[in-house]
Amino acid sequence: MVSYKEPVPRARRAAAPAARDDAPRARLDVDERRKQLLELGVQTFGHKSYDEVSIDELAAAAGISKGLLYHYFPTKKDFYVATVRESAQRFVERTTRAGATSDKDPLARLQAGLDGYLDYVVEHQAPYAALLRSGVGVDPEVARIVDDTRATLTAQLLEGTAVDAGDPLMRLAVRGWLGFVEHATLSWLDGKRRVARAQLRDLLASVLLAALQGAAK
Amino acid sequence: MVSYKEPVPRARRAAAPAARDDAPRARLDVDERRKQLLELGVQTFGHKSYDEVSIDELAAAAGISKGLLYHYFPTKKDFYVATVRESAQRFVERTTRAGATSDKDPLARLQAGLDGYLDYVVEHQAPYAALLRSGVGVDPEVARIVDDTRATLTAQLLEGTAVDAGDPLMRLAVRGWLGFVEHATLSWLDGKRRVARAQLRDLLASVLLAALQGAAK
Repeated sequence: MVSYKEPVPRARRAAAPAARDDAPRARLDVDERRKQLLELGVQTFGHKSYDEVSIDELAAAAGISKGLLYHYFPTKKDFYVATVRESAQRFVERTTRAGATSDKDPLARLQAGLDGYLDYVVEHQAPYAALLRSGVGVDPEVARIVDDTRATLTAQLLEGTAVDAGDPLMRLAVRGWLGFVEHATLSWLDGKRRVARAQLRDLLASVLLAALQGAAK
Repeated sequence: MVSYKEPVPRARRAAAPAARDDAPRARLDVDERRKQLLELGVQTFGHKSYDEVSIDELAAAAGISKGLLYHYFPTKKDFYVATVRESAQRFVERTTRAGATSDKDPLARLQAGLDGYLDYVVEHQAPYAALLRSGVGVDPEVARIVDDTRATLTAQLLEGTAVDAGDPLMRLAVRGWLGFVEHATLSWLDGKRRVARAQLRDLLASVLLAALQGAAK
């Protein structure tokens, strides 16, 4: 699990032994609180739209004052962007972990990675659909997170396949393929996942191979 | 060229000969004016974002009063939606015309249709990118036009290919493919069209065939 906790500065702790008992502990609490708030944000924004969520509600759910909440996230938008970033990291983490099988075969790794991708999407249908359908254009920071996540996910899924990222046509093929993945996945969710996950996953994998082949011609 | 002109009601004209000299003429002027305003809207919203365009500017460019403009389009949003609808019809018309070659081979028709698609996109880069990247979620009416246009374009491009639209996996393949087309095309525009149009078109066509094959397994 990826967290936002910054590494505890060990060197500084050693250099200032007098503060060792208190300072790191207080620091950890701040990090811990931030982590809890992010978890709350991921849950809340995962089921409600941005406009439906109020800072009052978030503060009440966290059992803290609005003032303290603002201390961690100066605006509602800051809080939202932080939860989007946290969710994106978890998404990448899940996909990467799933793809990191002991299998050395690129296709088997790709399929395993796609399984992780689809599993995550099923557990987070509402925010996945909302972000891809509408949220991206609304805020430039969110758009950047979505684009960065796309790039990272693509790089992870393609690890081991024969992609020459320097080739312009190959790049179009890869970018196009991610569009295929997203649109087919949204459509799959819309259709109440009537198609088996493995069938969709195999379709996505075979289209990637065809796209790379088509671009290599 | 598709226009918004409603058909002149011939039957009614014949039934009311006294009004024949004036009424149809006045009616035509109204239609003609609406058509001119739509053309102005397509040009203006094609180069500026919604927020950058003002009703004052549109009325001045059309050489009419704001009051008269509001007579045709009660709000700026109404005007914008009408121009999006008009642009979408032209887009479909162009793609359809290009695909309607004398060639009976489905692949040749698909390639010709994709040529028409890409030609239109090159001529309307800004609104194409804006609509697909951000505009869709902003307004439900615009979102519906975009979705309808996607469905119509897909049906046109796939005419003659072996698609069983009743098969859920086949539907995912087709929806995914349109995602491929849109993302690869946006990426192509971003990259200043360094890749030749024919190369992109062939990639899009080969990915469709692979997707349909993958779904038919």
